[in-house]
Amino acid sequence: MRLIPEPVEHLITEFGKLPSIGPRTAERLTFYLLKGDPTGSNALAEALAGLHKDLTRCEVCRNLATSSLCAVCAAPGRDHSLIAVVEEPLDVVAIEKTGQFRGLYHVLGGTISPIDGIGPEQLEIDSLTKRLKNGEVEELILATNPSTEGEATALYIRKALGDQPVNITRLARGLPMGGDLEYADQITLGRALQGRQAF
Amino acid sequence: MRLIPEPVEHLITEFGKLPSIGPRTAERLTFYLLKGDPTGSNALAEALAGLHKDLTRCEVCRNLATSSLCAVCAAPGRDHSLIAVVEEPLDVVAIEKTGQFRGLYHVLGGTISPIDGIGPEQLEIDSLTKRLKNGEVEELILATNPSTEGEATALYIRKALGDQPVNITRLARGLPMGGDLEYADQITLGRALQGRQAF
Repeated sequence: MRLIPEPVEHLITEFGKLPSIGPRTAERLTFYLLKGDPTGSNALAEALAGLHKDLTRCEVCRNLATSSLCAVCAAPGRDHSLIAVVEEPLDVVAIEKTGQFRGLYHVLGGTISPIDGIGPEQLEIDSLTKRLKNGEVEELILATNPSTEGEATALYIRKALGDQPVNITRLARGLPMGGDLEYADQITLGRALQGRQAF
Repeated sequence: MRLIPEPVEHLITEFGKLPSIGPRTAERLTFYLLKGDPTGSNALAEALAGLHKDLTRCEVCRNLATSSLCAVCAAPGRDHSLIAVVEEPLDVVAIEKTGQFRGLYHVLGGTISPIDGIGPEQLEIDSLTKRLKNGEVEELILATNPSTEGEATALYIRKALGDQPVNITRLARGLPMGGDLEYADQITLGRALQGRQAF
């Protein structure tokens, strides 16, 4: 006897695949949506279905975008001689919130992590070196997370760039070691931007 | 400048509407699905879209069902003279897991809660009194949660049934007051079933 009907069991399983959602929470979420009318679950279903469909990556910086350029690259008045290299699109949001950065970004898409099978070739490092070729960029801020993987990735990028004529800096150690860039408060992140040091 | 593209913002908003999901968790879940290929988010979208479509309520007991009768009502060998009245479908699952109940259920769909604007007429109490009319039912176990609302609802049902010739019982106070029936462990819930008292 199947006590929980298949569609319900199915949704519990799918919710349970998300990070930080255990079996109990998955059940709770499912029965919460069951209690409401179908509008709630359908709205979430549509948002999910539209997520990848309407989304692409910026041709220049690999940030999330809905057209060929992301919001930052398409904006007028940004400083094209300054690029902040970040791990994820959420890091772009975090830095923008400080209001202290007028340059552009380059989104790596993660960090070098041999344990997870992610090497430099899976990241947007090639596109970064190509982007520096025209000599327009004067400073590169390696704004990866102050974690082991973030440090390793920053080191790798510095080596990969070799003797390209560009200043390479790193965010100041205002950020606590082992932390996560997207969780930093705006003042700490702003100070780290101002106090960046030669790398 | 819209830093987070609309489809991403949309999904964050929708996740944030779920209980126990704050804005940070909603962001995390969304970016987790963004990092993966579309299979993950599409599977969840389909599960959500199918939730209400393929689901109905049992004609007899108002439990979740995929056809006119739920799994319990359709099962052979159940004791039709015994009905456990519960708040939610998850409570049916909890009682079934004890393996000590062979009767049928009646799912109220909640409790009387004036604060939330839920009166007796929003619950499946009319259908319960109609169900008792044919005289087949000998005992009614009021298995609502041992909470204020659950007690009030049980009291209301006892009064509503008036002098119908049926034994009305309540689960034994093995359950901790203020608790939630669906979270009770199987032994506690099993003992509460065995030790039910005249109401």
